[in-house]
Amino acid sequence: MIIPTVDDMLAAHDRIRPHVHETPVLTSRYLDALTGANLFFKCENLQKAGAFKARGASNAVFGLSDEQAQKGVATHSSGNHGTCLSYAAGRRGIPCTVVMPRTAPQAKKDAVKGYGGRVVECEPSTSSREAVFAEVVAETGAEFVHPYNDPRVIAGQGTCSRELMGQVDGLDAVIAPIGGGGMVSGTCLTLSNLAPHVEIYAAEPEQADDAYRSFKAGHIIADDAPVTVADGLKVPLKDLTWHFVSNHVTDILTASEDEIIDAMHLIWKRMKIVMEPSSAVPLATILKNPDVFRGKRVGVIITGGNVDLDRLPWQ
Amino acid sequence: MIIPTVDDMLAAHDRIRPHVHETPVLTSRYLDALTGANLFFKCENLQKAGAFKARGASNAVFGLSDEQAQKGVATHSSGNHGTCLSYAAGRRGIPCTVVMPRTAPQAKKDAVKGYGGRVVECEPSTSSREAVFAEVVAETGAEFVHPYNDPRVIAGQGTCSRELMGQVDGLDAVIAPIGGGGMVSGTCLTLSNLAPHVEIYAAEPEQADDAYRSFKAGHIIADDAPVTVADGLKVPLKDLTWHFVSNHVTDILTASEDEIIDAMHLIWKRMKIVMEPSSAVPLATILKNPDVFRGKRVGVIITGGNVDLDRLPWQ
Repeated sequence: MIIPTVDDMLAAHDRIRPHVHETPVLTSRYLDALTGANLFFKCENLQKAGAFKARGASNAVFGLSDEQAQKGVATHSSGNHGTCLSYAAGRRGIPCTVVMPRTAPQAKKDAVKGYGGRVVECEPSTSSREAVFAEVVAETGAEFVHPYNDPRVIAGQGTCSRELMGQVDGLDAVIAPIGGGGMVSGTCLTLSNLAPHVEIYAAEPEQADDAYRSFKAGHIIADDAPVTVADGLKVPLKDLTWHFVSNHVTDILTASEDEIIDAMHLIWKRMKIVMEPSSAVPLATILKNPDVFRGKRVGVIITGGNVDLDRLPWQ
Repeated sequence: MIIPTVDDMLAAHDRIRPHVHETPVLTSRYLDALTGANLFFKCENLQKAGAFKARGASNAVFGLSDEQAQKGVATHSSGNHGTCLSYAAGRRGIPCTVVMPRTAPQAKKDAVKGYGGRVVECEPSTSSREAVFAEVVAETGAEFVHPYNDPRVIAGQGTCSRELMGQVDGLDAVIAPIGGGGMVSGTCLTLSNLAPHVEIYAAEPEQADDAYRSFKAGHIIADDAPVTVADGLKVPLKDLTWHFVSNHVTDILTASEDEIIDAMHLIWKRMKIVMEPSSAVPLATILKNPDVFRGKRVGVIITGGNVDLDRLPWQ
């Protein structure tokens, strides 16, 4: 297991800067009044390819030697990592293959293809995904870029909270959704080194709460094929993300499906931004745990905006 | 008829600065590639109260003498002006009455009430709206702030393009939706004085094309109760806005209902912002008239984001 360092994160930031946006931070007096906190929404839904994963994917793709790069890259992803790896590979002009659950939103499959990537479908379970993926790698010799359990990816995701620190002074806490733990691990990598006093919260759907149960148990607990509207958060922790989560996360909070959908509708209505259900889990947990956040300056990572507009969860 | 001057616009900018956002400008490589132009989206959907009309309403409300202010303000509005006048009146702590069509989106009626304003309903026609409004003014003695045919409002709306000039260099053109012509008149006021070389385009629904027909005819032509998904654009030009439109607008372009809805869906999907159908009319006309805009740096005013999320037009 190779644990990325803060220098890896700083190098990643220099490497990816030509390929990603410094995303804006939005605020809402209405939501501040509702929560009693000062919320600073880091809008990675406005990131290239519509998600923070453009950071980690770009760091992995542009860090490859020309020799490695010519065989291309491959991954398995419930959505945004695949889209973002396809985006990064397209920027470098190398092949990209993405194994996706057949049940993934059509919008996400189209997005992978839109950036030039190839989609190979699997069943909507971690076990099926890993089996199909093994065949793809055997056949292409492509470089595997794991969606989150990869030091290059975690170093790339860590650039998001480094940006946020430069945009907002005096943060007391940062909260991000947790699935496999890539964004949370990158946040831990950056903040534990550059701002160790800042609390780090992870937000997870009750119906996919394997990270929550792992955190309480002190070891990784993996679910197979959980069901939640937050389709980006179904995957389990792995050894590298567990390292960061178990050592640096302050707490993991959970929210119900209805609480997630209500928070998503609230953000769309009041902040006028399009973001996906996974990105609403942090606000849902803040609304559910006001005492934890009241009076604090809280960075809230809006992780992505790739939602199927023709199938919104409140309809 | 009192025609506002560029000094009125500059004074308005100083007056309203504490009460409105300097809204961000967003870009999209995808939409630039699709149109062959460089588009700079001025995001007034992220403005206070969700629309550019917070500018004109704030200028009118905060320009009142204390004596005038105590009787409050009143207006008729198909939506955003009423919401924004209620917002501005609430900031100053004075009463606000808004006459709205009973058919206006519930979200817009709730928004007026949410800022403390009173809603009085009328039939969805210009004639009914003006009759009911006369009763309201007679009974309250409130100061009438017209949604657009008011020099204070036009001077306030003009601050939007002044901001845009500071955010984007070398604009060749600016395009905004046109209903009554308040935003277009403010744009004309600012650009004709501060950047007279910049072309000014107005975008209108085919099914509410009274401004287009007025522009071609050389005199005001008013429709009563046109039907379009762009519900902010149903009202007719008046003498003051006609003055600016007839003297300074380069051309008026129109789009069909389907073209407006497709452009709205495209902006939501690619730019990840929530905006209302009226705000999609400019992109719809740019897509329909590529030769007019190809190779130009174009400011596109996204006028508002107050849409009923439970009744989206593509559903």
